Amino acid sequence: MELGLVGLGKMGGNMRERIRRAGHTVIGYDRNPDLADVHSLEELVNRLQGPRVVWVMVPAGAATQSTVDELAALLSPGDVVVDGGNSRWTDDEQHAEQLAAKGIGFVDCGVSGGVWGLENGYALMYGGDAEHVARVQPIFDALKPEGEFGAVHAGKVGAGHFAKMVHNGIEYAMMQAFAEGWELLEAVDSVTDVREVFRSWQEGTVIRSWLLDLAVRALDDDEHLEKLRGYAADSGEGRWTVEAAIDNAVPLPAITASLFARFASRQDDSPQMKMIAALRNQFGGHAVESK
Amino acid sequence: MELGLVGLGKMGGNMRERIRRAGHTVIGYDRNPDLADVHSLEELVNRLQGPRVVWVMVPAGAATQSTVDELAALLSPGDVVVDGGNSRWTDDEQHAEQLAAKGIGFVDCGVSGGVWGLENGYALMYGGDAEHVARVQPIFDALKPEGEFGAVHAGKVGAGHFAKMVHNGIEYAMMQAFAEGWELLEAVDSVTDVREVFRSWQEGTVIRSWLLDLAVRALDDDEHLEKLRGYAADSGEGRWTVEAAIDNAVPLPAITASLFARFASRQDDSPQMKMIAALRNQFGGHAVESK
Amino acid sequence: MELGLVGLGKMGGNMRERIRRAGHTVIGYDRNPDLADVHSLEELVNRLQGPRVVWVMVPAGAATQSTVDELAALLSPGDVVVDGGNSRWTDDEQHAEQLAAKGIGFVDCGVSGGVWGLENGYALMYGGDAEHVARVQPIFDALKPEGEFGAVHAGKVGAGHFAKMVHNGIEYAMMQAFAEGWELLEAVDSVTDVREVFRSWQEGTVIRSWLLDLAVRALDDDEHLEKLRGYAADSGEGRWTVEAAIDNAVPLPAITASLFARFASRQDDSPQMKMIAALRNQFGGHAVESK
Amino acid sequence: MELGLVGLGKMGGNMRERIRRAGHTVIGYDRNPDLADVHSLEELVNRLQGPRVVWVMVPAGAATQSTVDELAALLSPGDVVVDGGNSRWTDDEQHAEQLAAKGIGFVDCGVSGGVWGLENGYALMYGGDAEHVARVQPIFDALKPEGEFGAVHAGKVGAGHFAKMVHNGIEYAMMQAFAEGWELLEAVDSVTDVREVFRSWQEGTVIRSWLLDLAVRALDDDEHLEKLRGYAADSGEGRWTVEAAIDNAVPLPAITASLFARFASRQDDSPQMKMIAALRNQFGGHAVESK
Repeated sequence: MELGLVGLGKMGGNMRERIRRAGHTVIGYDRNPDLADVHSLEELVNRLQGPRVVWVMVPAGAATQSTVDELAALLSPGDVVVDGGNSRWTDDEQHAEQLAAKGIGFVDCGVSGGVWGLENGYALMYGGDAEHVARVQPIFDALKPEGEFGAVHAGKVGAGHFAKMVHNGIEYAMMQAFAEGWELLEAVDSVTDVREVFRSWQEGTVIRSWLLDLAVRALDDDEHLEKLRGYAADSGEGRWTVEAAIDNAVPLPAITASLFARFASRQDDSPQMKMIAALRNQFGGHAVESK
Repeated sequence: MELGLVGLGKMGGNMRERIRRAGHTVIGYDRNPDLADVHSLEELVNRLQGPRVVWVMVPAGAATQSTVDELAALLSPGDVVVDGGNSRWTDDEQHAEQLAAKGIGFVDCGVSGGVWGLENGYALMYGGDAEHVARVQPIFDALKPEGEFGAVHAGKVGAGHFAKMVHNGIEYAMMQAFAEGWELLEAVDSVTDVREVFRSWQEGTVIRSWLLDLAVRALDDDEHLEKLRGYAADSGEGRWTVEAAIDNAVPLPAITASLFARFASRQDDSPQMKMIAALRNQFGGHAVESK
Repeated sequence: MELGLVGLGKMGGNMRERIRRAGHTVIGYDRNPDLADVHSLEELVNRLQGPRVVWVMVPAGAATQSTVDELAALLSPGDVVVDGGNSRWTDDEQHAEQLAAKGIGFVDCGVSGGVWGLENGYALMYGGDAEHVARVQPIFDALKPEGEFGAVHAGKVGAGHFAKMVHNGIEYAMMQAFAEGWELLEAVDSVTDVREVFRSWQEGTVIRSWLLDLAVRALDDDEHLEKLRGYAADSGEGRWTVEAAIDNAVPLPAITASLFARFASRQDDSPQMKMIAALRNQFGGHAVESK
Repeated sequence: MELGLVGLGKMGGNMRERIRRAGHTVIGYDRNPDLADVHSLEELVNRLQGPRVVWVMVPAGAATQSTVDELAALLSPGDVVVDGGNSRWTDDEQHAEQLAAKGIGFVDCGVSGGVWGLENGYALMYGGDAEHVARVQPIFDALKPEGEFGAVHAGKVGAGHFAKMVHNGIEYAMMQAFAEGWELLEAVDSVTDVREVFRSWQEGTVIRSWLLDLAVRALDDDEHLEKLRGYAADSGEGRWTVEAAIDNAVPLPAITASLFARFASRQDDSPQMKMIAALRNQFGGHAVESK
């Protein structure tokens, strides 16, 4: 089938390649003309035969919104827009309504895979009406991993991004689990080869997982991670997961602890711990490290 | 080679079978005569040709201690004792010293595998002197999974149980991660098929793992886990992991949150939340649920 | 001075009384005619001599919004509206802009004090332009406690509600601190009189505080809190505090743990702990409590 | 009455002074002869008329143990030893048994008060048999604050230190509560005077407390705490509180979060966050800060 693809960055570019390898036609647009197949969104829309499917793969927020706005003006009733970016699930319902007013369908799709996706396939979680999902299905089939799993119609509009967001929340806590365990093993004298402990865990254990495999790769590059700073960004999905939990009164202690550990990792000095130091100084004459 | 195996319960019995399948001779003792090959520890020791290797697979604490005490009296210099139970790593050094005083070697070994171990092999983490480990190596090779990984000489005496303990701490937080994510997905209306979301994650995602596979199996048995109570025991290793972290001033927020969630799951009513309710009642005339 | 007061519930009614005791004139409106001095917002506005000050003390969200909408239509340039309810700080800037478009000033005010406020005074945190705050100052002076402290101009519009929200976040964690300590003391045999321990802490300790005094009162009513269920509502401010922290990448581990403990207290059974139980069952044949 | 006091450091020296002001005779011993009234423990014991009361105020652990050992040898049946140091509650029962074998009584006493104790009195929590406590009562009365509260017979041997330990655990979480709130207020632009917000909270609020008063004092010294590093030691009681909670399966999320925040504050770089960074780098090509 034919697909319009908007956004040809690291993710979008690889996805175009994977879809083409599956035998589909992809017409790609990007603001960067070196990456693009067409010069404008308008040209992209004109080049596609209706009814069209256009996959948006641009940064969440303003960029996605302006692309949806333009597509709402350019597309025709019966066309379908897929938002494959990292939009917050709360944006999806708005986009669906905005497009539905023009008779255009909407599917939201969370995409996982990173730099490994081109070869291994992308995990896909999508939400929307069955008829709209069906229109995009050949593309989902091209992008997903080859095995039995890796793609799911998770529910209504927004469910795709919500499921992907929760995936990332789980990922935060799994990463934190390995990180805590690694620090503890490194802290004791009796365990003399932490890297080999991690390596051994890759078979027969309860915790065997792709993240464990990646940890071993990382330790093979740099056994004690001496080349890195203990600094971790967070990408939005972790924050949104906690906010969604608060909205639904669901306690998320491990995922939230993982998010807060990242916040703290980015502080050169901790304001709250200054206050702790100040209070200790006030009541106890405790030794306080001054600058 | 020949192995004496003390303790033929669910774990020990399967391990005897796996070692025998590898062509070794196992003489097993258990207090339950229906399970045992010999009638006493003394008979077990007498049946083994020196230098002997005796693997202890009995409950941590008093049972392991009394077995080590008896073996210290029965064995000869040059023999080696392996503690394959769930002993706390702090016990290992004491056992090693106690046995070393008689010229007997000691190796501690953390064993993971549960009911899957007989067929798939057991993940093994062991600690002790290289010469003692070398004596046990054929047995480790018989027990471990077939692949490249699954067994490690983690370090000095105690390192095996320490590594296994940390494995279990990581396991706690990984389980908690999936549990939190599942509850959040179940809490929202837009995600209409949480089980299929979990199933899809088994390929192409960052969080693919054996625990995820098990979660899917559990959901296939009981899609909304309606047959279960939200009640989780804890086995000691989680507690010890947090205690080891405290000893070493290592922050373990996610693992500890996972342990505390289990504690709370076992309370019919939460005393601390009664105090919260009482305080709210005092200062605000907030509505409080009375019994 | 003259004040219009909208909302004469438990809080508003007591505040009217305290302001009147200070010698000011209060004209109160409430949807409940038994409580009200006038029959409508319009009558309230007409009864006040300009330039007017109208204090809104109704539930946050829709009720506050519709009151602000009505007042925007009824009031005149130079009048000032105070929102003394529990509005989210993000609403304040919108209300300020909406009213400023009509030349009407806006002050947001967080009010703490509960049922004790009438006699002891209300702690007040307000935000807005200095000229608008100055107009309300006599009312702030009437409401605040008699001592040196208890009222603050915290900053710009929104700062009052933000400061009150953080106050409540701190309150959550302080309550949780006492609750955790109480549960631990009750759990051990050696401490035979936990209530007297709490009572003794009221002098000479680092943790002496009004909340401790309230805990002692609660224990005097019901020594082991046997009449209460461990069930705690949450009022919005705790959630907003965590959301504000996420927006600002500030780690709030203790406050968030306190919020999540409340969420968990309201669950009859914990979905996430069902998943933990299910996973334990899958990998280990661990005993699981079935329904 | 007459008291022997061992240990005349910052705490012990002030306590000697407060007890003397109350009209009692104190004979003090310290390894530092400039502080001591006598030259040896033996001389101290000889100078006291029987039945004697000797209060030990030396560092927990080895110093307390060796003092108890010496006193066990020097004292007579009917004498009483008080351990007023920061011993772990688990040491108390051993000391009581050791001394009881010689007919010597034992009382453990947790003491709170720091540098403020000399003037304001010390909060005291003690454990032991009623007859032994009665012997020390005049000293407790001299040390405690003047009001109605501040001293408690908490229970059996060990209960005094246990109660003091829990007091400190609560203190950790209360300090963390104020610290988190302060950091969040400082993080937003709209709140222009955080110090005055804290100051105002000293009356009429739910969170008014001595720790809040101390926070205001600290902010008056250094409004934004710019002279301090965000570095906080921990003194043992926080760790023991968490360990006691684990022993009793009591969830302590806020207190433990406070302890872990202190651990993290002392790390120049976080090993666990290096692992997070390494994993992010592996799966996503995420930007990582290298050294």
